[in-house]
Amino acid sequence: MEFINKRIKRLKAYKVPPVSEGEIKLDAQENPYPLPAKIQKKFSEILSRIELNRYHDPSYKLLKNLIGRYCGFSAENSAENILIGNGSDELILMLLIAAGGQGKTVCCPEPAFSMYRILSEITGTSYRAVKLDKDFKLPYSKILAVKPDIIFITYPNNPTGNCFSKEKIQKIITDSNALVIVDEAYYEFSGKTMMDWVKKYDNLVILRTFSKAFSLAGIRAGYIAGGAEIIKQLRKVQLPYNVSIVNQKLLEAVMEDSRELLKTVKKLNEARDRLFKNLQKIEGARPYPSSANYILIKLDDIESVTEYLKKNNIKVRQFKSPDLKNYLRVTIGTDKENKNFLDALKSAV
Amino acid sequence: MEFINKRIKRLKAYKVPPVSEGEIKLDAQENPYPLPAKIQKKFSEILSRIELNRYHDPSYKLLKNLIGRYCGFSAENSAENILIGNGSDELILMLLIAAGGQGKTVCCPEPAFSMYRILSEITGTSYRAVKLDKDFKLPYSKILAVKPDIIFITYPNNPTGNCFSKEKIQKIITDSNALVIVDEAYYEFSGKTMMDWVKKYDNLVILRTFSKAFSLAGIRAGYIAGGAEIIKQLRKVQLPYNVSIVNQKLLEAVMEDSRELLKTVKKLNEARDRLFKNLQKIEGARPYPSSANYILIKLDDIESVTEYLKKNNIKVRQFKSPDLKNYLRVTIGTDKENKNFLDALKSAV
Repeated sequence: MEFINKRIKRLKAYKVPPVSEGEIKLDAQENPYPLPAKIQKKFSEILSRIELNRYHDPSYKLLKNLIGRYCGFSAENSAENILIGNGSDELILMLLIAAGGQGKTVCCPEPAFSMYRILSEITGTSYRAVKLDKDFKLPYSKILAVKPDIIFITYPNNPTGNCFSKEKIQKIITDSNALVIVDEAYYEFSGKTMMDWVKKYDNLVILRTFSKAFSLAGIRAGYIAGGAEIIKQLRKVQLPYNVSIVNQKLLEAVMEDSRELLKTVKKLNEARDRLFKNLQKIEGARPYPSSANYILIKLDDIESVTEYLKKNNIKVRQFKSPDLKNYLRVTIGTDKENKNFLDALKSAV
Repeated sequence: MEFINKRIKRLKAYKVPPVSEGEIKLDAQENPYPLPAKIQKKFSEILSRIELNRYHDPSYKLLKNLIGRYCGFSAENSAENILIGNGSDELILMLLIAAGGQGKTVCCPEPAFSMYRILSEITGTSYRAVKLDKDFKLPYSKILAVKPDIIFITYPNNPTGNCFSKEKIQKIITDSNALVIVDEAYYEFSGKTMMDWVKKYDNLVILRTFSKAFSLAGIRAGYIAGGAEIIKQLRKVQLPYNVSIVNQKLLEAVMEDSRELLKTVKKLNEARDRLFKNLQKIEGARPYPSSANYILIKLDDIESVTEYLKKNNIKVRQFKSPDLKNYLRVTIGTDKENKNFLDALKSAV
């Protein structure tokens, strides 16, 4: 099979752990609350009406305007600032096709979302990780020293949960010649954004997703917001009809009623803060403050904890990286799920 | 904007002509018949039940088995022969990421589907077109002489509508060291396939789509069928959750009832053959025999015909390539649409 690129042959396929019945799923930063029945009913009605046999208008103008307005752009021309994709994954791939590849370097503070590395490898882009400073602070001068072509920064960071200093991120944007991607996947939880900078800095784009706060992981949708010029370039690598008519229509309905869908954010933030306080009381567990819908916890005895959680059918995220071997990341679930997790942790440590 | 790759800067974004009200749309090889009400209702019910807030099982095992069975593989392990994507476009991109890129060459007999060229350019793969021989025959020795790494062959070909000689395609598979992609987007209309070869030749994959015969252009779905080893390699470049839970569930319902959905194929084939015969009677028009849901027509006076069609709000496909400047491609529509087209053509020539 010589026709397959060597770098691809060396890779392993991404494996997702199987889901088992009755499990408490606190591993994937999902919103534990299903869609309001009203919205799901609306979705169902929409699908009963769509002309599925036709190719649709691939400019998504209405939807892009709605998202643009949500991002704070002026409505009349906000479509030129928005690019929609099938989840952040497709958008990261598009960014790497447009600006990465052979001879180009991605730099990323780690620990970070693993798809930055995986998609760099897939596209043949060299990937350089720089370890976070003490207390998960952004090592911005070390990142600049790499002289990368592309920089990924998650804000708040995954899995550490903290928001890096805005001043340091600004330094990275202004002092590098790189394409800087600020991934705001958890923006709705943190309430903090760099969106107001995209018209000022033409090397900055913001990446957002509908998979977390919006309770829509299953439909695979996200967007890039950026200045008109960079969006114009990225549009060239976009597959003409990448977003299905189904997702287009569902997202239009969502954006027209985003407040309804985002009602769970306040509830989840409050639950996170309660869980954090309770975790602080547990000896042998050190939770880190989080601005997202998950908490990173360092444990004195990770083995007995993970074994206990497993026995109790509670799924959390563990890490392969040696730096994080004593850590786990728990997603904020429903109050009952959080209590189950807390009780299990208390029993285990 | 130096961080954007030069090859991307040189490109133009793919433009799709806007759709206008009341138009007779015979330009995009869509199935003119909407889904049976029964199936669309089923879709709507499915969407009312899906847990959209969760990431789903990304192995798509049930769906892959159903598609595998449709392709004629034995049911128990057919999942290993199938890869699903968001339309052929995403699958072509995956093939080019896995086997193309800098230093690699795609060869394609032309005229052909334009995305082979566009996605080659996007991925930095060199693209070599070889003109079809007289009567749109496959110039297989010229293709082999290019010594390409990847060969795209559409079967039946688009826009010419004919099926190339199976023996010549076999020669290309056996005598090249290339990855050979046989795009059977119109398979359900031709009834002819190379599927039985994928287990014999590990450099062959078959590309298929739900956008044409299945009346599902709007959901963006297609699949690659191939031997287990090549599918394993391609799986490495697949985005982990590329197919949404919505598409997964809709397609499961479709594959469980594919006969119902494909009832329009016979009707469209009969309409095509009738239209072909009627076109033969028109002086100044030369239709080419087609095994797909469209007919390529050479016209003595293309300008007056296209002007007349435009005035009558009938949209057909024209071509930018100088070789095809006297041709148009008409998609088979409903009986009424076909009659409108025929009448217009008669008046125009």
